[in-house]
Amino acid sequence: MSQKSDGMNYAPQGKPSPVVKPGEFIFAAAHLDHGHIYGQCNGLLEAGGELALVYDPDPAKVKAFIERYPQAKPARSLDEILDSPDIRLVTAAAIPSERGPIGCRVMEASKDYFTDKTPFTSLDQLDQAKAVVARTGRKYSVYYSERLHVESAMFATDLVNQGAIGRVIQVIGLGPHRIGPKENRPRWFYEKAKYGGILCDIGSHQFEQFLTFSGATDATVTQAAVGNFNNPDTPELEDFGEASLLGNNGSSNYIRVDWFTPKGLSTWGDGRTTILGTKGYIELRKYVDVGRDKRGDNVYIVDDAGERYINVAGQVGFRYFGELILDCLNRTEKAMTQAHTFKAAELCLRAQLAARKIS
Amino acid sequence: MSQKSDGMNYAPQGKPSPVVKPGEFIFAAAHLDHGHIYGQCNGLLEAGGELALVYDPDPAKVKAFIERYPQAKPARSLDEILDSPDIRLVTAAAIPSERGPIGCRVMEASKDYFTDKTPFTSLDQLDQAKAVVARTGRKYSVYYSERLHVESAMFATDLVNQGAIGRVIQVIGLGPHRIGPKENRPRWFYEKAKYGGILCDIGSHQFEQFLTFSGATDATVTQAAVGNFNNPDTPELEDFGEASLLGNNGSSNYIRVDWFTPKGLSTWGDGRTTILGTKGYIELRKYVDVGRDKRGDNVYIVDDAGERYINVAGQVGFRYFGELILDCLNRTEKAMTQAHTFKAAELCLRAQLAARKIS
Repeated sequence: MSQKSDGMNYAPQGKPSPVVKPGEFIFAAAHLDHGHIYGQCNGLLEAGGELALVYDPDPAKVKAFIERYPQAKPARSLDEILDSPDIRLVTAAAIPSERGPIGCRVMEASKDYFTDKTPFTSLDQLDQAKAVVARTGRKYSVYYSERLHVESAMFATDLVNQGAIGRVIQVIGLGPHRIGPKENRPRWFYEKAKYGGILCDIGSHQFEQFLTFSGATDATVTQAAVGNFNNPDTPELEDFGEASLLGNNGSSNYIRVDWFTPKGLSTWGDGRTTILGTKGYIELRKYVDVGRDKRGDNVYIVDDAGERYINVAGQVGFRYFGELILDCLNRTEKAMTQAHTFKAAELCLRAQLAARKIS
Repeated sequence: MSQKSDGMNYAPQGKPSPVVKPGEFIFAAAHLDHGHIYGQCNGLLEAGGELALVYDPDPAKVKAFIERYPQAKPARSLDEILDSPDIRLVTAAAIPSERGPIGCRVMEASKDYFTDKTPFTSLDQLDQAKAVVARTGRKYSVYYSERLHVESAMFATDLVNQGAIGRVIQVIGLGPHRIGPKENRPRWFYEKAKYGGILCDIGSHQFEQFLTFSGATDATVTQAAVGNFNNPDTPELEDFGEASLLGNNGSSNYIRVDWFTPKGLSTWGDGRTTILGTKGYIELRKYVDVGRDKRGDNVYIVDDAGERYINVAGQVGFRYFGELILDCLNRTEKAMTQAHTFKAAELCLRAQLAARKIS
């Protein structure tokens, strides 16, 4: 299932390292519109979560899901899941424009929520979710997979936190993606009101990484642009987006996202992150070391001691999921704070709103 | 002389390929403030130019220059050079704030001018040079060395022109540089009125590359920032700069320049250029393939056919210099048009003026 040809069905698998005993953390999956749901479930299962129920209005999606996870019992509705007292968390990968409202329903039912990115398609949805979090005390957590489910990015998170490159001045995030055969994508993928725009959608990963690597807790959008350069048959698809941010700690950020991965690339996208610090810099070649090595998780570090290359595939694991489970059980925020989760969401929405149209 | 530890004295040498016979193109060197003068002279000499005279107010600079180029006779003043009827072109690497006025004197004396980048430190200087070019018909040419004197960048110029990656959507240019021991740099290097600011100075290379690779003939600055993050002892040194441009053909550009090359890097800067097209992309790792290969001129190309890595060091040469000599003799514009030369200069000045201060 961890196939690399397109990002939509890229569901990383890690080494199981349960943080709880069987039965201590029961969750359900609902709304399987994006293939990321498999990555979300893999992460929770490897951390010891128990998958009890699954719901989607489309029986074919449920059937495919149960073939993969036979332990999941089909529910007749989301309400059936919300009414099940054992379920602590609902993980979902709905159509982006529905993720916010579904999350509010989940939290109102006193359950934590773990949605695929992008978590919202409007600032109104974000505000509503903030209000429900404040009222219910539940968690609205987000699968920002391009850091949380990428070992090189988790490795860099620790390096930067340890001060390996000094103060972080700037982060560049490149997130090219492959569309693949266009007919294999669902209709909503090409409808802007549903996917939210390219900066809102795949841009969300990048802003989350900027906040994490820079330590900024807020930022302003200093420029943004989106365009459809080469997909006239799907005019609402933005195939290019870029934005620049200035963090509230003086660090800056440039991100570029696009749907221009050529057929010849050996994976779905040549994702890169470059983190510039006062004492060195780190470059991640996340999914391929283009022209050099088809493995992902390539880390380059340059500091006063020299140039180093490390491949960290299989060496780091995905601690986020275990931390999330423990956060849900202990009401802590070790995996990610709610403020950080929401700020990344806000920045991708603000960048999308600020974007000039280019072509 | 082609040493790679700092950019200031990096003077590439290529294979001699003269475009003229001895004595057909005689030039002089004047104002040796920046080590780039050696790269400028190497390029012209390899293309068949004849170096006749040299002038600098500092005898020590002249002495060092003549040790390298014994054929150059010392002149007592710039005027002596300007009064010499055989001299067709004067190449200079003055303090940046003096480059424009010196160029105007050279052109007024009916000679072509070939200056180190950055060519100007103010829009007024640019306007004056434009007026003198219009009146005299002489050339104000600029050593934008990070493309013209880099084989991988000249290789990419041809690839893009041949349509190898389709329509160019976006260019990212990263130009990190090493200061080296701070006392080895001249005083003007740390005085903003003299070097013009980081976007004006080392940023100029990047804007020239954007115009070349994208085919844009004009652009607007959509955001820019400069800062001194880690050099409090030289407060006028901007050690970080970035800018975003939108070209008049819809292409966009992000550039980052800085003085944060760590001691451990095997060369003076990990310069990168990434050119995204509708049919593929090209990445240049110009001076080192960090952590992989200490050689420069590493070209990565991804298109529908696959991922390719090519090292082009020694394979391409530096055709600019021969083209410049022939342009001077034939009054053509094959090496670079005057409009392009001035537009790149204008963009670096406009970006510098637009830059917010960050820290």
